[in-house]
Amino acid sequence: MALNIKPIADRVVVEAAPAEEKTASGIYIPDTAKEKPQSGTVVAVGNGKVDEPLTVKVGDKVLYGKYSGTEITYEGKEYLIMREADIYAIL
Amino acid sequence: MALNIKPIADRVVVEAAPAEEKTASGIYIPDTAKEKPQSGTVVAVGNGKVDEPLTVKVGDKVLYGKYSGTEITYEGKEYLIMREADIYAIL
Amino acid sequence: MALNIKPIADRVVVEAAPAEEKTASGIYIPDTAKEKPQSGTVVAVGNGKVDEPLTVKVGDKVLYGKYSGTEITYEGKEYLIMREADIYAIL
Amino acid sequence: MALNIKPIADRVVVEAAPAEEKTASGIYIPDTAKEKPQSGTVVAVGNGKVDEPLTVKVGDKVLYGKYSGTEITYEGKEYLIMREADIYAIL
Amino acid sequence: MALNIKPIADRVVVEAAPAEEKTASGIYIPDTAKEKPQSGTVVAVGNGKVDEPLTVKVGDKVLYGKYSGTEITYEGKEYLIMREADIYAIL
Amino acid sequence: MALNIKPIADRVVVEAAPAEEKTASGIYIPDTAKEKPQSGTVVAVGNGKVDEPLTVKVGDKVLYGKYSGTEITYEGKEYLIMREADIYAIL
Amino acid sequence: MALNIKPIADRVVVEAAPAEEKTASGIYIPDTAKEKPQSGTVVAVGNGKVDEPLTVKVGDKVLYGKYSGTEITYEGKEYLIMREADIYAIL
Repeated sequence: MALNIKPIADRVVVEAAPAEEKTASGIYIPDTAKEKPQSGTVVAVGNGKVDEPLTVKVGDKVLYGKYSGTEITYEGKEYLIMREADIYAIL
Repeated sequence: MALNIKPIADRVVVEAAPAEEKTASGIYIPDTAKEKPQSGTVVAVGNGKVDEPLTVKVGDKVLYGKYSGTEITYEGKEYLIMREADIYAIL
Repeated sequence: MALNIKPIADRVVVEAAPAEEKTASGIYIPDTAKEKPQSGTVVAVGNGKVDEPLTVKVGDKVLYGKYSGTEITYEGKEYLIMREADIYAIL
Repeated sequence: MALNIKPIADRVVVEAAPAEEKTASGIYIPDTAKEKPQSGTVVAVGNGKVDEPLTVKVGDKVLYGKYSGTEITYEGKEYLIMREADIYAIL
Repeated sequence: MALNIKPIADRVVVEAAPAEEKTASGIYIPDTAKEKPQSGTVVAVGNGKVDEPLTVKVGDKVLYGKYSGTEITYEGKEYLIMREADIYAIL
Repeated sequence: MALNIKPIADRVVVEAAPAEEKTASGIYIPDTAKEKPQSGTVVAVGNGKVDEPLTVKVGDKVLYGKYSGTEITYEGKEYLIMREADIYAIL
Repeated sequence: MALNIKPIADRVVVEAAPAEEKTASGIYIPDTAKEKPQSGTVVAVGNGKVDEPLTVKVGDKVLYGKYSGTEITYEGKEYLIMREADIYAIL
């Protein structure tokens, strides 16, 4: 599952989970004023900063802000590269 | 009561207490210019930052700002994920 | 006099002294351009930050800025919760 | 001369010297574009910050910016409370 | 492949790879709202900052932001000089 | 030449050299878009900051920005008080 | 080649190389949106900051931003004084 990319310092590469925009019963969920984070899977991690190793590791399912990170395309697939600080939690 | 989420660094997950918008005698309380904090219960905590362990722990009732944190939905329930610095006090 | 609240880090809870808006001889004092600080009594203190213990303690009469802190209601009474840095001096 | 007030951290209390707005020969001095600092006497000092003790002490005559500090009234007299960094020099 | 330039501190010189603006099947790719990073090859690196040696080295293929760095011309060729923090990842 | 003023921390007092607004041949020099620094002589220096002693000393001729510092009048003469960081170089 | 000026801390004095605004074949090069750095020779260097000695030395040919530094005139010649951080690379 790990990508052959080495993010710099405190950056990580995340493969976004497909967005769920319907409830279990099939109702479309409109965006509310307060934006929800999104989830994905970590596929590459940097070495962290001096005296601050990273907490997340490859394979972790993570929550992150809707507008976090920068899209990159690698071998035909889309990923997000972001700083670990943009990740809210490990699920 | 603890959630199976691991917040990153100094983040915590809080389950908000229902808002009380009436006084004991049933009078509706209008919003004043100075915003009141809200209370909730901590359900998950991160590992803190380097040399700065967290003070709050799972189960603590806490006060936090009205607009603190980001809403997340986990197993059908709504929570708030915020930095410990957004928490004012433990009740 | 101490409140059963534990402020986080460098926060303190202050019970504001009633504002004096008349002089000894009963003249109403208008607000001037330069805002005066207000006084109150510390009723709860946090543990301070790493390597920076707090200076104020419960029972201290303190001066603080007119717009410092956030109002909280606890057991029917109003208090202010603020960072110690918002306090100017101990009287 | 010392006041019975304990400023927090790097704050000091200064009693302002009366402003001189006339020259020796009685000419009124208009404000120029470049603002002049004002002088006063230190009447109370804080304990400084961690590893940064204060330089000024009670009794020092000091120069400070025209808009530095916050006015406080103590026992019927007006003082200024400011951070030591707002003081330019000891005369 | 290394350039005879010595970037200062945490700067690196990158030779940009030619932009691919068509897909494999020859379709032109329009810019989307979310900007894609670009790739290139590191041709010179600085000595890093105090206690923070650089991670990238000469020859590394790197991803960086579309607007990162400053164009320089050296011996008739165009390069980009940027801080290592502007680099997202090593491919 | 030294003034009997003790600047706080990293501040220094400078006596400005009279501005030269004509060339050797008497041509008036208009202000250009890029502002020139001015020169003066250091007449008083602070003790520096913790672990950062000052470099300039009383008697040094220095270059500083046109708008650096605050004018002070001491014993009938005008001086400038500024932070050492506002000084560009010792001549 | 060294100037008799002592820049403060991390500042350096640079003698700008004359701008080349024509190509080898004599075509005038218009300014593009992305500004090019300029080159020059270091003629004086400061002592650096605490724990951060300077990297450039007198005689180094350097690249720096088009709008970096402040012009100074010394013994009838124009120089630029700038912080080392405004220098991109040593050629």
